Amino acid sequence: MKKIGIGIIGLGNIGSRLYKEILSKKKDIGLKTNTNINIVAISAKNINKKRSFKIKRKIFFKRPLDITKNPKVNIVIELIGKADGISKKIVENSLINKKHVITANKALISKHGDYLSSIAEKNKVNLEFEAAVGGGIPVLRTLKEGLATNKISKIYGILNGTCNYILSEMESTKDSFQNVLKKAQNLGYAEPSNPKLDLNGSDALAKIKILSSLAFNKKISKSKCMLEGIESIESKDIDIANQLNLRIKLLGITELVNNKLFERVHPCLVPKNTYISNVNDVMNAVILEGEPVGESVLQGEGAGPGPTSSALMSDLLSILRGNIKFPFGIPSSKRKKPVIYDQNLNFNSLYLRFEVKDKPGVLSQITRQLAKYKISIARLIQIPDHKRKRASIIIITHKSKELYSFKCLKSFKSNKNILKLPTLIRLF
Amino acid sequence: MKKIGIGIIGLGNIGSRLYKEILSKKKDIGLKTNTNINIVAISAKNINKKRSFKIKRKIFFKRPLDITKNPKVNIVIELIGKADGISKKIVENSLINKKHVITANKALISKHGDYLSSIAEKNKVNLEFEAAVGGGIPVLRTLKEGLATNKISKIYGILNGTCNYILSEMESTKDSFQNVLKKAQNLGYAEPSNPKLDLNGSDALAKIKILSSLAFNKKISKSKCMLEGIESIESKDIDIANQLNLRIKLLGITELVNNKLFERVHPCLVPKNTYISNVNDVMNAVILEGEPVGESVLQGEGAGPGPTSSALMSDLLSILRGNIKFPFGIPSSKRKKPVIYDQNLNFNSLYLRFEVKDKPGVLSQITRQLAKYKISIARLIQIPDHKRKRASIIIITHKSKELYSFKCLKSFKSNKNILKLPTLIRLF
Repeated sequence: MKKIGIGIIGLGNIGSRLYKEILSKKKDIGLKTNTNINIVAISAKNINKKRSFKIKRKIFFKRPLDITKNPKVNIVIELIGKADGISKKIVENSLINKKHVITANKALISKHGDYLSSIAEKNKVNLEFEAAVGGGIPVLRTLKEGLATNKISKIYGILNGTCNYILSEMESTKDSFQNVLKKAQNLGYAEPSNPKLDLNGSDALAKIKILSSLAFNKKISKSKCMLEGIESIESKDIDIANQLNLRIKLLGITELVNNKLFERVHPCLVPKNTYISNVNDVMNAVILEGEPVGESVLQGEGAGPGPTSSALMSDLLSILRGNIKFPFGIPSSKRKKPVIYDQNLNFNSLYLRFEVKDKPGVLSQITRQLAKYKISIARLIQIPDHKRKRASIIIITHKSKELYSFKCLKSFKSNKNILKLPTLIRLF
Repeated sequence: MKKIGIGIIGLGNIGSRLYKEILSKKKDIGLKTNTNINIVAISAKNINKKRSFKIKRKIFFKRPLDITKNPKVNIVIELIGKADGISKKIVENSLINKKHVITANKALISKHGDYLSSIAEKNKVNLEFEAAVGGGIPVLRTLKEGLATNKISKIYGILNGTCNYILSEMESTKDSFQNVLKKAQNLGYAEPSNPKLDLNGSDALAKIKILSSLAFNKKISKSKCMLEGIESIESKDIDIANQLNLRIKLLGITELVNNKLFERVHPCLVPKNTYISNVNDVMNAVILEGEPVGESVLQGEGAGPGPTSSALMSDLLSILRGNIKFPFGIPSSKRKKPVIYDQNLNFNSLYLRFEVKDKPGVLSQITRQLAKYKISIARLIQIPDHKRKRASIIIITHKSKELYSFKCLKSFKSNKNILKLPTLIRLF
């Protein structure tokens, strides 16, 4: 049995769970991979923090970078997070020193994945990041192995559990975004200090970028793309969606349109009888469309120490089986830069909510403006608020060009009868 | 680049699709695995059958067993089917002759998988059978790799597309079992000559047996277990289920109950708002419960040339990557015989439908008998059929012991007011 030394850097909720998981599964792993694994190095910001296990001081390293050059360490597991700074250095140095790396860091991989994978390939070590996308759902491995030779045309799904929890909870409790966000923070579903990266869609977008490059065998796209979060969704929108037999979900979507890459993350209105609209709470789900497999669906818990350590352990086993794989499935040199689809050309049905003064002529001002931008109305609902002399006007449009709808919405800014920038949600 | 010769035995719908798939993906596969693959041998019952491609006579073998000893062949793909006879010989001989084997044959693997995997391990070759379970859904690979170190406690799902199509179609068209079956046969969803193995649940059970042994690291169970198909489901049952906000699905279920294996396949009544009840038509779905991952769901097309060749190709890539793996995840010698749970001890709520003569006292005869067997009634519906002087009595019971409900149902045989053996469907 080959002796393998593991170094874990970062001992928060996930690192701690993984530490115990590795110890408890040591025998099982030995059986499956014919290796004798040992945790020979750990590092954390605060050695004295209260943890559910006792830290062995003998294997504790104050400076995490020391682990990356320690000859006893064969595999480094980076669990600090953030795209740059110390985590990047740890991964970079480990790979340069010919150590395999496992990371759950989606920000890092979506930003520096191309660079890091080229070092890994050069040095013939693994760089694994299953836990970066979809938590416990083994979606990267499924793309690289289970659906290995499929021609993937589209991937979409719910990739952020925080947002999905908030939207589900807003629907079931009819409570406001702010109140539900607080609840999510109390439950540990949203970061207490700075939940922004979850709420504004950046987290989901990092995952979409990783999925794109794996699915389409391209370099990670650096272009700006359509990115909207859920911060401006009000319970009013959820109510109205409900009446229309629709539900609001934050979707990440990536597809090839005429061989051009079209990536985006934004709230979508989905019919209630679809699969994706029934994925609730913190669950994640990914739908893949491929040839010859057809449509595949993967669903599971997207975050938390349990699912994440399941993914990290699958990376560990993949390395222990002794197979050096290209981190993105094919050699870096064969991965071309993607050609980017011009999102302005996209057509979508829109849900528009206008908050207006209840005065004659306002509706006609709106409809005239929409007509000017070639946006035609499929459905219109006006909800009066007599007390405040206001009204909500909800318009569902036929398919309209993204460029026009963007310009059109902006044009309403100067209209004093319209009380705030209209809310726009795309129909999926 | 290493040269690899492939032999395909069986050129029906699936074999033909795979043949073309391998040719068209040759370059892509070379890139991913650094190999140069060629189809060097094929065999089929009838060389002259009309196919969508021209058979190269130079590589055609009349006797498929000749392929298993041909030195040019490194990988044999068996696509004939059936548990015994020629397909078993092909797989057995190929493994003995140190050739890797890929098969889609669930009957073969569920019956002889233990024996065949021991030959594969001894000769250090792969035996892969992803396509045997769940068609395009890479569920075996997910168990072996993506969820590799999870402790799985339960797997259940819709594993037979034919049955799921028939039940979905009976619900949406309100047509009879026989008519819908004919339709399924015309569409190619059910075998024209002998659809029995699909309809009686045997096909799903073979898959459950394979899943059990992979999930729980045990030998394949040889014991008889609870097996019921969908042949006795009438549109009346589907109607009533609908009124109760339930749906009938044929589920395969395997779990460990106090470390004892409990496998079964039978129709289940599932609430309409659950995930599994909304998996319709020919779709398959598998739900896995594991620690630490939580609940994972995989869904996709369960049959047909496209999904099946996707699975076969993933097996091919796994072999080409050059990693010899244990066919069932761990060494055969470490896989113990499972201890079997006594299914008679199981408790279930039941749906019972009695067809009775519309005479006074019949209902009290039924309820008295149920009470005798400790089966208590949660709900009762009587639907009269005045014309024929009959009635249907539907009873939903509280949780009852399997042994008692079985005995109780049998006891009604002698009651002449009850026109046929009552229909029993378990609630899930």
